[in-house]
Amino acid sequence: MGTVKTGLSMSLDGFIGGLGDQAWPVHELLLGWKFDLASFRERIGLEGGQSTIDSEIESEEYLHNGAYVMGRRMFDSGEVPWGDNPPFHAPVFVLTHHARATVLREGGTSFIFVTDGIESAIRQAKAVAQDKDVFISGGASGVQQALKAGLLDELQLHVVPVLLGEGVRLFEHLGTKPIELERVSLVEGTGVTHLRFRIIK
Amino acid sequence: MGTVKTGLSMSLDGFIGGLGDQAWPVHELLLGWKFDLASFRERIGLEGGQSTIDSEIESEEYLHNGAYVMGRRMFDSGEVPWGDNPPFHAPVFVLTHHARATVLREGGTSFIFVTDGIESAIRQAKAVAQDKDVFISGGASGVQQALKAGLLDELQLHVVPVLLGEGVRLFEHLGTKPIELERVSLVEGTGVTHLRFRIIK
Repeated sequence: MGTVKTGLSMSLDGFIGGLGDQAWPVHELLLGWKFDLASFRERIGLEGGQSTIDSEIESEEYLHNGAYVMGRRMFDSGEVPWGDNPPFHAPVFVLTHHARATVLREGGTSFIFVTDGIESAIRQAKAVAQDKDVFISGGASGVQQALKAGLLDELQLHVVPVLLGEGVRLFEHLGTKPIELERVSLVEGTGVTHLRFRIIK
Repeated sequence: MGTVKTGLSMSLDGFIGGLGDQAWPVHELLLGWKFDLASFRERIGLEGGQSTIDSEIESEEYLHNGAYVMGRRMFDSGEVPWGDNPPFHAPVFVLTHHARATVLREGGTSFIFVTDGIESAIRQAKAVAQDKDVFISGGASGVQQALKAGLLDELQLHVVPVLLGEGVRLFEHLGTKPIELERVSLVEGTGVTHLRFRIIK
């Protein structure tokens, strides 16, 4: 049985995205550490790039994923830029309130729309992933729902050394019952710090 | 010239304290990593304890401090438990709205009440610290004011692997201009992760 996990780039003050017209600049700021990595360039079809520890970490995050879960807004903003051959190469379960027919893409990616919540999405994703992992791609709300429902097994954060002051907070709406974690890995990247935790249940 | 710095234990979701009747349990949860360390026990007059990397980090945080700055609430909650010989052994500048005569204690600690804001408190603290450091003990508001005024040079976080869901957030009210940092140290403690940053100005 695989694990249910997520991996997100987060500012030191806890934001994983920007609001309004800050969405794109903050995206660049938080994900910038990936753009020149060999692993990232390879995934989007480019050659070259740096083969650092960051590249290993970035690559490893996708290696064992048999299915994905993501929020509807993430799907909406990605649908066009991802093109005909999106970088998932596996079924992606999209959390939405509106039923829609499955979208098939090249390279093994399909988008399946789930209207009955996070537990159903994760259950379906686990069924197709079999012994591989289910990766929750975000946004914040999907990760929060999975955490709150006790369905997340592992959490990786790529902490970017910046205080943004505002944006989309990763850790909100979690209720007031503390969730304990155990650090399973700590890697000093170039600028960014990679922290991986197991959620204790 | 010394630096202006702070060091705080923070939950992974960004809280450094609890609200209302959660204040004490959260204090124990976030500072628990210190309680059995040799350095911490020595500071409060006890023998024994563990001499780990955490103990070194904890001890180092106090070593070069020539003066402290703290918020009024922190002073109020500490005044009695700290007793006749508080653990500062240096002048402590307390941010308050109400003027009050300086309080002298044993062992070199004095509490000086500053009514004209963070800049004044840090300026006075620097003057007495000379080539030693000024340490901002908290709470969150004092650190936020120092960060926002561009007066903080270094920030150490002891990240505790727990998601609290609610409490006193460290990084709030910072405005919307990103503050860039540079990681200067990363140490894998027992459970806790020690991250030290320089603030880029």
